[in-house]
Amino acid sequence: MSVKDPLVVFTPSGKRGRFPAGTPVLTAARQLGVDLDSVCGGRGICSKCQITPSYGEFPKHGVTALEGALSDWNAVEARYDEKRGLKPGRRLGCQAQIRGDVVIDVPPESQVHRQVVRKAASARVIEMDPATRLYYIEVDEPDMHEPTGDLERIARALKAQWDIADVTCAFPVLTGLQPILRKGQWKITVALHKTAHDATPQIIAAWPGLHEGGLYGLAIDLGSTTIAAHLTNLDTGEVVASSGIMNPQIRFGEDLMSRVSYAMMNPGGDAEMTRAVREAINTLTVEIATEAQITTDLILETVFVCNPVMHHLLLGIDPVELGQAPFALATSEAMNLTARDLHLNALPASAQIHILPCIAGHVGADAAAVALSEEPGKSEDLVLIVDVGTNAEILLGNTTRVLACSSPTGPAFEGAQISSGQRAAPGAIEAIRIDPGTKEPRFKVIGCDLWSDEDGFWDQTASTGITGICGSGIIEAVAELRMAGLMDPSGLIGSAAQTGTERCIPEGRTHAYLIHDGTADGGPRITVTQGDIRAIQLAKSALYAGARLLMDEMNVDTVDRVVLAGAFGAHISAKHAMVLGMIPDVPLEKVTSAGNAAGTGARIALCNLTAREGITRTVREITKVETAIEPKFQEHFVNANAIPHATDPFPELGKVVTLPVVGFNAQGDGSDGRRVRRRRRGNSHV
Amino acid sequence: MSVKDPLVVFTPSGKRGRFPAGTPVLTAARQLGVDLDSVCGGRGICSKCQITPSYGEFPKHGVTALEGALSDWNAVEARYDEKRGLKPGRRLGCQAQIRGDVVIDVPPESQVHRQVVRKAASARVIEMDPATRLYYIEVDEPDMHEPTGDLERIARALKAQWDIADVTCAFPVLTGLQPILRKGQWKITVALHKTAHDATPQIIAAWPGLHEGGLYGLAIDLGSTTIAAHLTNLDTGEVVASSGIMNPQIRFGEDLMSRVSYAMMNPGGDAEMTRAVREAINTLTVEIATEAQITTDLILETVFVCNPVMHHLLLGIDPVELGQAPFALATSEAMNLTARDLHLNALPASAQIHILPCIAGHVGADAAAVALSEEPGKSEDLVLIVDVGTNAEILLGNTTRVLACSSPTGPAFEGAQISSGQRAAPGAIEAIRIDPGTKEPRFKVIGCDLWSDEDGFWDQTASTGITGICGSGIIEAVAELRMAGLMDPSGLIGSAAQTGTERCIPEGRTHAYLIHDGTADGGPRITVTQGDIRAIQLAKSALYAGARLLMDEMNVDTVDRVVLAGAFGAHISAKHAMVLGMIPDVPLEKVTSAGNAAGTGARIALCNLTAREGITRTVREITKVETAIEPKFQEHFVNANAIPHATDPFPELGKVVTLPVVGFNAQGDGSDGRRVRRRRRGNSHV
Repeated sequence: MSVKDPLVVFTPSGKRGRFPAGTPVLTAARQLGVDLDSVCGGRGICSKCQITPSYGEFPKHGVTALEGALSDWNAVEARYDEKRGLKPGRRLGCQAQIRGDVVIDVPPESQVHRQVVRKAASARVIEMDPATRLYYIEVDEPDMHEPTGDLERIARALKAQWDIADVTCAFPVLTGLQPILRKGQWKITVALHKTAHDATPQIIAAWPGLHEGGLYGLAIDLGSTTIAAHLTNLDTGEVVASSGIMNPQIRFGEDLMSRVSYAMMNPGGDAEMTRAVREAINTLTVEIATEAQITTDLILETVFVCNPVMHHLLLGIDPVELGQAPFALATSEAMNLTARDLHLNALPASAQIHILPCIAGHVGADAAAVALSEEPGKSEDLVLIVDVGTNAEILLGNTTRVLACSSPTGPAFEGAQISSGQRAAPGAIEAIRIDPGTKEPRFKVIGCDLWSDEDGFWDQTASTGITGICGSGIIEAVAELRMAGLMDPSGLIGSAAQTGTERCIPEGRTHAYLIHDGTADGGPRITVTQGDIRAIQLAKSALYAGARLLMDEMNVDTVDRVVLAGAFGAHISAKHAMVLGMIPDVPLEKVTSAGNAAGTGARIALCNLTAREGITRTVREITKVETAIEPKFQEHFVNANAIPHATDPFPELGKVVTLPVVGFNAQGDGSDGRRVRRRRRGNSHV
Repeated sequence: MSVKDPLVVFTPSGKRGRFPAGTPVLTAARQLGVDLDSVCGGRGICSKCQITPSYGEFPKHGVTALEGALSDWNAVEARYDEKRGLKPGRRLGCQAQIRGDVVIDVPPESQVHRQVVRKAASARVIEMDPATRLYYIEVDEPDMHEPTGDLERIARALKAQWDIADVTCAFPVLTGLQPILRKGQWKITVALHKTAHDATPQIIAAWPGLHEGGLYGLAIDLGSTTIAAHLTNLDTGEVVASSGIMNPQIRFGEDLMSRVSYAMMNPGGDAEMTRAVREAINTLTVEIATEAQITTDLILETVFVCNPVMHHLLLGIDPVELGQAPFALATSEAMNLTARDLHLNALPASAQIHILPCIAGHVGADAAAVALSEEPGKSEDLVLIVDVGTNAEILLGNTTRVLACSSPTGPAFEGAQISSGQRAAPGAIEAIRIDPGTKEPRFKVIGCDLWSDEDGFWDQTASTGITGICGSGIIEAVAELRMAGLMDPSGLIGSAAQTGTERCIPEGRTHAYLIHDGTADGGPRITVTQGDIRAIQLAKSALYAGARLLMDEMNVDTVDRVVLAGAFGAHISAKHAMVLGMIPDVPLEKVTSAGNAAGTGARIALCNLTAREGITRTVREITKVETAIEPKFQEHFVNANAIPHATDPFPELGKVVTLPVVGFNAQGDGSDGRRVRRRRRGNSHV
């Protein structure tokens, strides 16, 4: 059957057109601008252009597709099916020719710009638009009568076969090009990388013949404490392995400022930290590739997100300027480098490194990544995004304007500088509830799904023991103390006499709350001390004050919703965060967790070149607010010291939680200056 | 005195225009496009814009310049004069303001595009148009309320103060930028490099404040045997030091093909040779900088010219493909790399490396450099340019067309594979004359200006001794043997009986000519053996056959002139070269030496970006002739074996030299097939 100029309708795009009978489907797709992949350029060897023809009546499209609307299977398809297997109903778009009207579906795996659903709660998807793509070419053999270099003939082939002009070649690839060409008998696959859509493409890898080993990229969230990497297939967008490693710079200082100090105090200290972090990234790269059972030479791109100090130390720039006003970055723009530049030797020398732009000296590429992931600038309602870590990155915005700042919360939220604090690891208390009546605690530890008052808890935790409290545990503990009336709004823990429970034990001139005494079994005695409360108060005041500063700048007293980002954000309950006064008052259901938003932003940038270009522009439009020198920050900080707050009302919180009115100051007046009674006399609204 | 819109005429350009009274001379020059240098942008600190005003009547320009046509010396000029001294009559163009009609001369040292006279015989000059230039800028201090990176503020300053946009920064410079800015108190000098006039400029170095230490470049002629470097001031074009070093790759093979063989036979052999040559370049860099008393960090550019095998080994590319047809280059285009790419660690990491394009697999960047220096494509008469080395590069052309080939002469012309051969060094015989009557030789050795028959010769050479024959010596010796009738046209040396001199001594079944017997003093016995003659015959036949092949392609039987290039070319007398039949017959005065034309080409490319761009285009238009596979090459080669030639007449040579008709073949017939008498019977024309 053959119809003159049959009608072809592609789904899901809906693009349609008439083509002379005999036109290959791939050709028709290209002419219509349908997103149909091909690496081999229509030679029937890469199988990327698989399509599914549909036959029958399609009133929606006004098409009746008869059997025979496509040419019969040809030898190329039969051979491919025999060798690799074609799914039922599938055809190779470059081989199947159009004979009659037909509807042709392009399945997601045949689309270059396919959409990848993210695992995270958010329903948004990542559209694939990778900066690096594969092209199969057949290169002219050298002719000594018309001498040209092998590279020049590759460039000619790319122009003739793909209409790609002005290709350059990464130097480390050039030096190994000749044997690859000859091994492939003048047929090779090149990986072309573009730093921007309008940039000239560069050959960053080459393989003999058709390369079928895939192409991978790393999205790395380089944190002060941990380095987390997602190994992503750049063709499918699939995360094939995820892995993390401690940032070995911790031995030079727990938080950012102590690392900057280390660099200032020790000549060569910055280089030492640079070496350490690069080695860790190399180790992580090898580990994650091993886990995914690929070789590292297939990892051709890496995107980094990190705070400014990590940024400078990764680049090998002394971070000293970031430790003092005016906090000048060496460069704030997005960077395109190579693995060789950064001595990331586990990667191929010409592997491309992209680092997201920094927003300001205190607001880094990690905040930019959060902005890319959470898109506050596209939010109709006013959203406050808080990425809690050793430093908190805070974004506030909606479609009209986006503001950003960072706030030095310190490591208390991560369980550091807490008397019984520890990192999130088996044995750590991660959740706690205190009965307002009995004042008795129950808790959960990492590695066990039971509460401590449930049967089997002690058996299941016997191997790990109860070893300490992690970040989310201490936040809950402080909030629970407040809700149970064991701690007053100023943060003072009451005595046994004041609270009526022997769990409030004296510790010097203050009191501590005993959560668990494991000393009988040789374990630790786990308490929340007055010092712990002070550390959490400092951290949460800094966080809240930063948010308030942005709200001042925005001229608002409330926000519409709050997004808690960071791995940590996923473990904080909205209620406890708000009892603590970490975040402004909003309806509890308006507090959501975005998971590791910075990591997600890195993945988006890895998979989508348009997103990279977009965030570079977006970042320039973000208003930066510098907390360190803003006098009002201090005022906000002091007011935020009370739990939940000295002056700001928390009406939404009040609807769901009733906080007892107590005061344990020996002088009888609370830190808010009001006289309060020394004894709990029941619950009342905040 | 102040005139409304006075007339200013600049010399030597002749550019003229009217400007409001009070306009600084530099401003007027810029508006007229007058080539007047400035690094500091008119701040009166760099002194690059010095000019000389002329006063009086200038009928040629129609100007009467009165005293007072320029403003009086100001404080800036006075301070500069006191500190550094201004030559009499000089003014700073940025300080002196135009008040009345005036003629202003821009002295050569104030011109960016000044012309540098080459030392070589050729009268052509190099016009300065360096790819790297200095710019002094004053950068905004960081402001934490408007956070931008230091680099971004540098880019802003370059745009505002020099109208230079889209500047990028070499990564190794970026990592050290912050302390430089602060040391210079936000005033810095940057070196901007462009790979082409239309390329975006890149910061490749930076200094605090005004950099006055100059800027240097290396022009390196990377030969198979020696590596020669000229250290050039990129501001003045002056060669401040020249130095050479042996190519350490010699230990892997004397000539190119033996090095290619080494790489083929020994896995990793190519990498070994790459390391060796890079180390030698590093050593040479340090030596030449020491000689010039500069630090190597001021050497920001290096231009390399070399043959294709050296080219690939420098780049770290296995040269195996260059050892076999079709002699495919990895790349033939000009290359722009960094010192870091090539591990040239004596140079700053971001120092720019430019390698001239290769013409073909056998005709390298050295031939391109000769083309750049000698410009055959601009010659009205047909010029043959021969660059004699281990390989000979041959160019033939005029304004209509340029052809190129290379010919494998082997190392005989350099004294290698010659029984008494040695490199050009003190003690080596470099010139020789044989008396046609007595058949006695006299000679000169390197290190002594006297001939061996002059008084004092033996005293002066006592310290070195007479150690061997260098390249030019052996060529002269063979030509002299022919002229003295001691060797016949086929290259046979006659016996003592045939020649009538005891200096013709038997050596196996052939004869040798004894030049000097030093054995009595413990020195060597220096002879020209029949084997030496054969080696020279092979070399000169290859050279001549290559030239003939180009002449065939050009469809001519004669050329108008011959240029001998190469360090060696300078030492060969035209007459001897032609007696030997190395080069086609032309009037002797039409044979000139261009010195190290490849090295000169490298210097031109170093000093002039336009020249780099030009030679890249020129090379594409050169017709490449492949000698190795051309059947006629073999025929030309065989015919060229006779001395001077079996079939080609040498009428011009005949006008000045009379070659004896002799034949020493034992069978009594010469290699040219004619019967000749066994005994010399006097001279006759060729």
